[in-house]
Amino acid sequence: MTSEDFRSAAHAAAGLVADYLEGLADRPVWQPMAAADRQALLDLPLPETGTDLDGLLKTVAEQVLPAPMGNGNPRFFGWVNSAPQPAGVLATLVASAMNPSSAGGDHADVHLERAVVRWIAELVGFPHPAGGGLLTSGTSMATIVCLAAARNRAALRAGVDVRAEGLAALPPLVGYVTGETHSCVRKAAELLGLGSRHLRTVATDAEGRLDTAALEAAIAEDRAAGRLPFLVVASAGTVGTGAVDAFHPIADLAEREGLWMHVDGAYGAFGVLDPVIAHRYAGMDRADSLALDPHKWLGVPVDCGCALVRDTEGLRGTFSLVPSYLRDEAAGSLGWFSEYGTEQTRPFRSLKVWASVAHRGREGVAADIAHTTALARRLGELVEADPALELLAPVETSIVAFRYRPAGLDGEELDRINRELPAAVQLRGRVFVTGAVLGGHEMLRACLLNATTTEADVRLLVDEVHAAAAGLTGRPDTSGPA
Amino acid sequence: MTSEDFRSAAHAAAGLVADYLEGLADRPVWQPMAAADRQALLDLPLPETGTDLDGLLKTVAEQVLPAPMGNGNPRFFGWVNSAPQPAGVLATLVASAMNPSSAGGDHADVHLERAVVRWIAELVGFPHPAGGGLLTSGTSMATIVCLAAARNRAALRAGVDVRAEGLAALPPLVGYVTGETHSCVRKAAELLGLGSRHLRTVATDAEGRLDTAALEAAIAEDRAAGRLPFLVVASAGTVGTGAVDAFHPIADLAEREGLWMHVDGAYGAFGVLDPVIAHRYAGMDRADSLALDPHKWLGVPVDCGCALVRDTEGLRGTFSLVPSYLRDEAAGSLGWFSEYGTEQTRPFRSLKVWASVAHRGREGVAADIAHTTALARRLGELVEADPALELLAPVETSIVAFRYRPAGLDGEELDRINRELPAAVQLRGRVFVTGAVLGGHEMLRACLLNATTTEADVRLLVDEVHAAAAGLTGRPDTSGPA
Ligand SMILES: Cc1ncc(COP(=O)(O)O)c(C=O)c1O
Ligand SMILES: Cc1ncc(COP(=O)(O)O)c(C=O)c1O
Repeated sequence: MTSEDFRSAAHAAAGLVADYLEGLADRPVWQPMAAADRQALLDLPLPETGTDLDGLLKTVAEQVLPAPMGNGNPRFFGWVNSAPQPAGVLATLVASAMNPSSAGGDHADVHLERAVVRWIAELVGFPHPAGGGLLTSGTSMATIVCLAAARNRAALRAGVDVRAEGLAALPPLVGYVTGETHSCVRKAAELLGLGSRHLRTVATDAEGRLDTAALEAAIAEDRAAGRLPFLVVASAGTVGTGAVDAFHPIADLAEREGLWMHVDGAYGAFGVLDPVIAHRYAGMDRADSLALDPHKWLGVPVDCGCALVRDTEGLRGTFSLVPSYLRDEAAGSLGWFSEYGTEQTRPFRSLKVWASVAHRGREGVAADIAHTTALARRLGELVEADPALELLAPVETSIVAFRYRPAGLDGEELDRINRELPAAVQLRGRVFVTGAVLGGHEMLRACLLNATTTEADVRLLVDEVHAAAAGLTGRPDTSGPA
Repeated sequence: MTSEDFRSAAHAAAGLVADYLEGLADRPVWQPMAAADRQALLDLPLPETGTDLDGLLKTVAEQVLPAPMGNGNPRFFGWVNSAPQPAGVLATLVASAMNPSSAGGDHADVHLERAVVRWIAELVGFPHPAGGGLLTSGTSMATIVCLAAARNRAALRAGVDVRAEGLAALPPLVGYVTGETHSCVRKAAELLGLGSRHLRTVATDAEGRLDTAALEAAIAEDRAAGRLPFLVVASAGTVGTGAVDAFHPIADLAEREGLWMHVDGAYGAFGVLDPVIAHRYAGMDRADSLALDPHKWLGVPVDCGCALVRDTEGLRGTFSLVPSYLRDEAAGSLGWFSEYGTEQTRPFRSLKVWASVAHRGREGVAADIAHTTALARRLGELVEADPALELLAPVETSIVAFRYRPAGLDGEELDRINRELPAAVQLRGRVFVTGAVLGGHEMLRACLLNATTTEADVRLLVDEVHAAAAGLTGRPDTSGPA
């Protein structure tokens, strides 16, 4: 392969990607793959000999690009998966051509990561001491990083060096979550060896917010039993309904009780940029750590999470293998990113964050966020105005939780229809929505993250739910005039 | 931004990247950044308003591309960082434009990941049951995944559900490593709450290989003290010298003692593709788990690690939050990748693996590997033939461990010069090599991963070491005629 071969293939790839993105909105949002196409991918034989770049791009065009997940489309409302920012897509190309390891050292990527971690903190109004965070593969990993720091602090306070001694040297450490806390917290607690049994589920109030009175009682009970309460996890946007916890009362209690306060802002933290809902986030900046996902509401191409902490030396002390007397010499006083987290070789994630934010500026990012929350509220209104639909939670951020509930549909049958509805809607290919369970009830939830989504798109979502429901129930389509 | 704006910026980015890669070999391998340039990146203000794509690319061209890590250059011999495969670079562009989450579901990326994980296993001759592994951000993460599975099995055998109960319910679990084991294993043990004190360093033989007699004695001692031996870590290529452990005796002992055998093949596992050294890897396929890095010797753009396991249901049982009675319904009987590891949202890493391998085929990959091992042996010969250099370990794979040791240089001074040499070589900009400590001695180590590196390049490395040493010692340049 000559340089010219590469150059021409790079242009071909650029054209392929431009065509793909241009055509996305006109295609079905998602379609199941034909069984033969799926099997062809699964069974791809390890080739004995090579294929030139053009041949590879042909395979991409024929076997890969036609079968996307769907989240690039403005009518994708599933889970919490966003469309990629075009600037971030181009940044990814450059980042992979440079291919550094952003573990540490003196090259552009490392310094840029410090800048964009600060940007992220500034965007959400979190403290940003030098060294106060790093990019991760997502919030699942950021949560592991933050909870490891919390565990380390708790152990040190109990006089144990948990890195050396392990958890066998400590009484059970107890953390507090709610029924709405994302499962990545349980996964982190299990991985860290804390045990999910020691992650206690605290009651929530009517709006799904952590009830601090219940938390206080649980702490007292655990202390009395000889366990070590050490952590409370609050949510800046739950995955089910987008609810934001009341941070000040939690922070007050955490301070009083000496707990580490962690906020899961994976989906919702950037909502604070919308002046209409910013007040809900009051006190988020009091957390000891905040995990959030540029690869969600900011549209940074996957993967990109971020862990922010208040105590930078505590974080470094949790992970660094550089003896402390050597740290300052090593590579500037902040040392290497690999001293602050789990990854040694680290990809150049910062360029796509930089590009995705710089392309729009703070103003543009905030406008995009505000567009989606406004659209979510509009969808909430459409649902409330629709006699066959039921809104299941107030629209606090950009998630709308609702179900299909025409007169006369109840009990088991109501749950069955709502359980089957998401797939039925998805298979129609015009919009994509997913389901969840809330308070024991099957529901649909639409998550709005795409600034190119329009009111017509959310109206279509409502129509499609009706149409799919008609198919499932055998009742006539219950939607009103278009 | 219109589609046409994106299309033209995509072509501009393609050109930028092609220029960058074309010019790499003619530039200094690495240079420290000018203080003002570094500070400009660190201090980049969060912009209030946006910048168009062309403006962003201009910044990339002026502030980012001129300051690479250096590993794209054929004369980069530092750490274990490779140049990116051009096919992988283009794949990254497509992957980020599609931007799926490869957590699960029915889209091309998910099925392709199953295929490439199998390819990786086939390449290194490891068992590949369906569901037997997944891509990760690197070997650090793959090690965490594998060791979590090991911990889970050990706990179950002791009658404890460690996911629920945590490690407080168990006696200390003990793992065995050697002094040459990569630090990511210690990091994993700490993160998992095992405690680094319970990671016991077993003696090695003269070639740096784990001594199974010493291991057997250590196991007996730990059992007698009431601890639970559960894990032994072997290396398929140590980071210091590239040594490969003798796997069969370790596997025999692990079987007898009921230990989980994990192999760290981050750097070296793909060396098995070179027929000249393949015999060293005999028995690697007997491991319970193997962690390895496509982003090292395969040249897949960072990040890309891989965890392979023998017991797929054990891995799933370590991480899945899907109740077992629901698993088969969920998404085909293998379920979601997020049930087999730590990540929920997962990037489309498989496309760059596919492209990097398919572009060369198994044959081409093997030839690339063989080229670098041959060149490493050649470098070893040059070092041995050079009276001022000392080879410190046999060249088993593609790492050459050596030091500068002209007659008359000894003791403290010898160590000081060798400690300072890597930076001195790097600053000259013509080759890049890093240092390490072996058996208490400062040394240089050159790692060959780039198939475009030539014998002239390794000769230049030798010359540059001499030239840099002359600068440090004030002695005349000790190199022979060029
Ligand atoms: C509220 C919340 N927390 C955590 C996560 C996990 O984040 P990630 O998928 O980036 O690991 C998600 C993902 O959807 C989420 O919505
Ligand atoms: C032998 C060995 N093991 C593990 C690692 C860690 O792998 P990663 O940096 O992909 O996390 C490395 C990295 O250089 C290595 O050389």
